[in-house]
Amino acid sequence: MNAPFAPPSTAIIGAGIAGLTAGKMLGDYGVPYTCFESSDRIGGNWAFGNPNGHSSAYRSLHIDTSKYQLSFKDFPIPDDYPDFPHHSQIKAYLDAYADAFDLLDNIEFGTQVVAAERRDGGGWTLRTRDGAARDFDFLIVANGHHWDPRHPDFPGRFDGRTLHSHHYIDPFDPIDLRGQRILVVGIGNSAADIAVEVSSRALRNTVYLSTRTGSWIVPKYMAGRPVDKYGAALPFLPRKMFRGIVNTIAEGLAGDPTRFGLPKPPHRFMDAHGTQSVELPLRLGSGDVIPKPNIARLDGSTVHFADDTFAEVDVIINATGYNITFPFFDPDLISAHDNRIRLYKRIFKPGVDDLAFAGLAQSVPTLFPFVECQARLIAAYAAGQYRPPTASEMEATIDADEQMYLGHVVDRPRHTQQVEYFTYERQVRVQELPEGRARVRTGGPALRAQSRV
Amino acid sequence: MNAPFAPPSTAIIGAGIAGLTAGKMLGDYGVPYTCFESSDRIGGNWAFGNPNGHSSAYRSLHIDTSKYQLSFKDFPIPDDYPDFPHHSQIKAYLDAYADAFDLLDNIEFGTQVVAAERRDGGGWTLRTRDGAARDFDFLIVANGHHWDPRHPDFPGRFDGRTLHSHHYIDPFDPIDLRGQRILVVGIGNSAADIAVEVSSRALRNTVYLSTRTGSWIVPKYMAGRPVDKYGAALPFLPRKMFRGIVNTIAEGLAGDPTRFGLPKPPHRFMDAHGTQSVELPLRLGSGDVIPKPNIARLDGSTVHFADDTFAEVDVIINATGYNITFPFFDPDLISAHDNRIRLYKRIFKPGVDDLAFAGLAQSVPTLFPFVECQARLIAAYAAGQYRPPTASEMEATIDADEQMYLGHVVDRPRHTQQVEYFTYERQVRVQELPEGRARVRTGGPALRAQSRV
Repeated sequence: MNAPFAPPSTAIIGAGIAGLTAGKMLGDYGVPYTCFESSDRIGGNWAFGNPNGHSSAYRSLHIDTSKYQLSFKDFPIPDDYPDFPHHSQIKAYLDAYADAFDLLDNIEFGTQVVAAERRDGGGWTLRTRDGAARDFDFLIVANGHHWDPRHPDFPGRFDGRTLHSHHYIDPFDPIDLRGQRILVVGIGNSAADIAVEVSSRALRNTVYLSTRTGSWIVPKYMAGRPVDKYGAALPFLPRKMFRGIVNTIAEGLAGDPTRFGLPKPPHRFMDAHGTQSVELPLRLGSGDVIPKPNIARLDGSTVHFADDTFAEVDVIINATGYNITFPFFDPDLISAHDNRIRLYKRIFKPGVDDLAFAGLAQSVPTLFPFVECQARLIAAYAAGQYRPPTASEMEATIDADEQMYLGHVVDRPRHTQQVEYFTYERQVRVQELPEGRARVRTGGPALRAQSRV
Repeated sequence: MNAPFAPPSTAIIGAGIAGLTAGKMLGDYGVPYTCFESSDRIGGNWAFGNPNGHSSAYRSLHIDTSKYQLSFKDFPIPDDYPDFPHHSQIKAYLDAYADAFDLLDNIEFGTQVVAAERRDGGGWTLRTRDGAARDFDFLIVANGHHWDPRHPDFPGRFDGRTLHSHHYIDPFDPIDLRGQRILVVGIGNSAADIAVEVSSRALRNTVYLSTRTGSWIVPKYMAGRPVDKYGAALPFLPRKMFRGIVNTIAEGLAGDPTRFGLPKPPHRFMDAHGTQSVELPLRLGSGDVIPKPNIARLDGSTVHFADDTFAEVDVIINATGYNITFPFFDPDLISAHDNRIRLYKRIFKPGVDDLAFAGLAQSVPTLFPFVECQARLIAAYAAGQYRPPTASEMEATIDADEQMYLGHVVDRPRHTQQVEYFTYERQVRVQELPEGRARVRTGGPALRAQSRV
């Protein structure tokens, strides 16, 4: 007879949405854990002005997912929230979530993990900034992937000021963006929001937007209802049909980007993280934002573009995305070069069975129930109720999933983590959890408390 | 045999779009005229910061008609203009128009007409601010109808600051709108634009929007193309079918206003001047603009609303439209009480054959070719090539036109002048001008130079 199952001692790095949901689910399954949070508060990216520097939220940020898709399954979003909540409301929602499930008691605030070292026999030694070292059987990495700015590298030298969207707060902070010639680089949601905000005529700026690839820019509303409410009606269609319908509608809504001076996207709508903005096309069509192709080179205050045009610029704002960074890992053990990291279900690294990643994905159309779904799988794993397949089977599935989710995705660092939530969630619920439970019945849990085995 | 036709000496009051097009057409027909402009520049409403106080343009104003519908027929809008030009581009377009047709030579700048007195035997004596008096046979009133702010009258007293949209320039001018509790009153385009601009999170205001009637709020773009490009494809349908199609599409695009906390409009889309904004619904749906019903009463800094809610407010911005005002007329002769004035083709006042009004209409979807069309009729009249029907026939037609254009229009001062451009223009071109020319052949010109007859 096997010894009775004892759950592994577990550490979570980070108390953002991924760390919080992981903690909540571990609690549900009776797995003891400690969550290390470098900041004095929860929320990570959604804690505007987060003193740990890990929030990329600007003052005007509203989430681009409607509250109908955003809600955790285990904790409904307040009815009185607007369709597209402000970051302060998302933070309040996470605070209420943490309160409701008593998550704060398990979080060690102001405790930055500076090294996570894998011990020879398995398990982890975590070293914190205060010099302490703590051992855990299982490590959940939930340190986020929207905090380490990715800067583009253009030839030449720019004499003006350069700012990454990560540090942009509003047109007055951290630098005064009035009466300036501003070049925003990028075509993601941050680029769109910032270009719109600084091109307000009241600020008397001249605003250029440079992008090398196009994007399908879709509105948040269609006929007065959040666009993602329509999409949510379709997920039970066959995936190919679902994608076809969504692509056709979204590209129709977006219209021809070349009418606005933007390049035609080389991909279908669902093949890359889309840009949600009704305001950017209007600003382009009103002459308030001047479209430009990719930057060819920089020369003092002059920016030369790929179409041989140029512009005099005071400030460049790089809204060019983020690196996936694990500052606490030995890069030889784990790193994400060009934001690529091969993970089973975007959670498990084959061959490293005492490690899980949470929230390390760009899930469309919604992130919150996605991290909740991952947390459920991770907690079942820690509780000995789920076992992944063998390492070689995992590798094969990773290949297949990459082909499915990323096969036609634009090959760019910001698109390496694309996951379709509805497909992912259904697959985990109807297949992965039951099969993993069956694997436990035949092979036993993959992981248990080392001290007691 | 009749004496050879000599055109009447003609005066135009105002050098905005209506006065300029009238002058251009008079020139084409060889009618001598003088245009009196109180300002030092042309453009009227479109001369941002106009020293005569008659511009209602705010710094961020873009016209809500796309350039494809906006263009004068006689003077194409520049190809390189954006879809929705900025007010500065409209002004530049009017400047180029005036240059191209040598209009400036006929304009007396800085010359305000303070009285227009009808002489007993017909014709007008114009008295200008400098004390001079000048006689003319024919008077064209083109003094605009977007410069005399209409203020609402709510019970109670408000202690904070009150501003009319006419005086709003931007969030810093004429008053600092940062960190304020602001109530915008109205649901027209100015109300929408101003509510959107001051609710930018960067300004840290709390913004309420109060409206008693609803409005269909439609975007400027549909599927990446200006909405009015679609409508322009339909005008040759029977009018009832055209209205049905436009109403159905527009109301579908707008969606249900009650989802955004706005009242359901009591009318169909084409029955009132619609509101064009993609940003206002987004701001409402993001919680950045808080919808409120009509104001019930004011009490110090508290505003009470019709639904028994209230709000503390620092600044009220009345975007409540304009009065039609003719400060130079004896009100017993001509006035527009509640913005109502009975005019044949919105030009001629039956019984006063030496007077024409230009541009005194709210023409949808476009104003510029509308004033051009009116100017053509007015100039043909002055040149003796068009004669309107008898006064009693004109009265009957006014009744019929009001029934057609305004029969189901919301009974509000801002909707008294609604005209459908496509219907109006076709009717003038295929019916009114040919019939008026026939009436000249039988009855002679209605008007000629008095001194020579």
